[in-house]
Amino acid sequence: MRVLITNDDGIGSPGLAALVHAFDAASEVYVVAPEHERSATGHAITLHKPLRAHPSGIAGSAAQAWATNGTPADCVALGMLDLLGSRPDIVVSGINVGPNMGRDLTYSGTVSGAMEGAIFGVPSIAVSIGSFRNPVFTTAAQFAVDLAQAIIRYGLPEDTLLNVNVPNLPGPQIAGVAITRQGTKRYISRLEKRTDPRGRTYYWLTGEPAPQMDDEGTDSWALARGQISVTPIGLDLTSERLREVIARWPLAVPFETPHQ
Amino acid sequence: MRVLITNDDGIGSPGLAALVHAFDAASEVYVVAPEHERSATGHAITLHKPLRAHPSGIAGSAAQAWATNGTPADCVALGMLDLLGSRPDIVVSGINVGPNMGRDLTYSGTVSGAMEGAIFGVPSIAVSIGSFRNPVFTTAAQFAVDLAQAIIRYGLPEDTLLNVNVPNLPGPQIAGVAITRQGTKRYISRLEKRTDPRGRTYYWLTGEPAPQMDDEGTDSWALARGQISVTPIGLDLTSERLREVIARWPLAVPFETPHQ
Repeated sequence: MRVLITNDDGIGSPGLAALVHAFDAASEVYVVAPEHERSATGHAITLHKPLRAHPSGIAGSAAQAWATNGTPADCVALGMLDLLGSRPDIVVSGINVGPNMGRDLTYSGTVSGAMEGAIFGVPSIAVSIGSFRNPVFTTAAQFAVDLAQAIIRYGLPEDTLLNVNVPNLPGPQIAGVAITRQGTKRYISRLEKRTDPRGRTYYWLTGEPAPQMDDEGTDSWALARGQISVTPIGLDLTSERLREVIARWPLAVPFETPHQ
Repeated sequence: MRVLITNDDGIGSPGLAALVHAFDAASEVYVVAPEHERSATGHAITLHKPLRAHPSGIAGSAAQAWATNGTPADCVALGMLDLLGSRPDIVVSGINVGPNMGRDLTYSGTVSGAMEGAIFGVPSIAVSIGSFRNPVFTTAAQFAVDLAQAIIRYGLPEDTLLNVNVPNLPGPQIAGVAITRQGTKRYISRLEKRTDPRGRTYYWLTGEPAPQMDDEGTDSWALARGQISVTPIGLDLTSERLREVIARWPLAVPFETPHQ
């Protein structure tokens, strides 16, 4: 199995090292990851400045590794189009410190790395650990290997990926694996308004988890029950239900265009 | 109607000015937009550096405007949480120069501005013009006003937005309005590998439209027929079909974790 590993916490992140070590035993591992943290970067790609990739390494592993000045999606593109020489069998993005679930998914650099893999037509998974504090990666890393092997065996349909969130618990305390749907849980955005030493206003954008609990069967529901959550994600964002509604609206090409 | 307008081409973009002028007649218009171009920025938000918003203006309009050092999503958050004082009735992102369709949607800064509006619970639309060359914005801008008025009248369900692509044609040559689904058309990523004056490798990431044509009923199909494409987008990315498939895989919590 040829594996391309990326992340958004940066190439020095212990979550990435844990993935590399878990895959090392049975795979040919390549790492292309941002040289520094690129969290909340969304599915950004870099078109307006040159990209660089520096040979790097992961302690305790012989995996070929590169650190780049790009986003997770850039890293996958650089790996696919040049660094790896040929396509990998799977792309694994993570392990992110902190969950990637619910409405926050579209902000996630970790998920965007897997999205880019899927757009390249390679089966891809994103892996996150459900806590920002004292993360223990071993169970999540081994689950990623098991899941990758299942994907190699059974295949993933085109234009899909799997988003995995693992509770931050020792393996024996994890209450099984749930195949979930994306919940609606989100961070409530807050803005801290401050004044700099020169008297000018600046802002810090922060967030806190919304208090509402998600429904049964969602990603955050499974995680709260101590289960590993696996959410199948599609790249088609069309809302078919809304499509039927809008089709009944009286929309037409404007006849008058006031600012010719 | 209180309208918050943003974009990813930057506050100086003529596409944004066209929107502001079209909405000016019947609305209270606020502009919060990036101070420079933020294309292909995905749904990125800025958590790791301070955000700034400078009072600005749009020529020929009395709209209140701010230029920020953030992404389109940051602009919407800054507008909602501080600058506007209270929530707008609608968020309009655009008019982007060049289409935002098919698999490229997740990269789009224009769409991410509307996504952020939807996450804040405000009806939101993204508007793009189907050509990178000699864009004429008047029809697209007036259609955005008409669509916003329809949304105010009929409402949009929670966690949805509308993605609009308008052919770059004079109004009378446009062949109607199509309610579409997101196609699979994408840019094929290419990497130009170069050597800098110091002998080191660098890359430019570029793309060219894939040759394949999209199916009937998709965004790019409608645009190719000279129609305005309106695609209803949902924030739930779950692939229900794949969920049933994965549920049959023999996945379990790993018992052995090799790297304690």
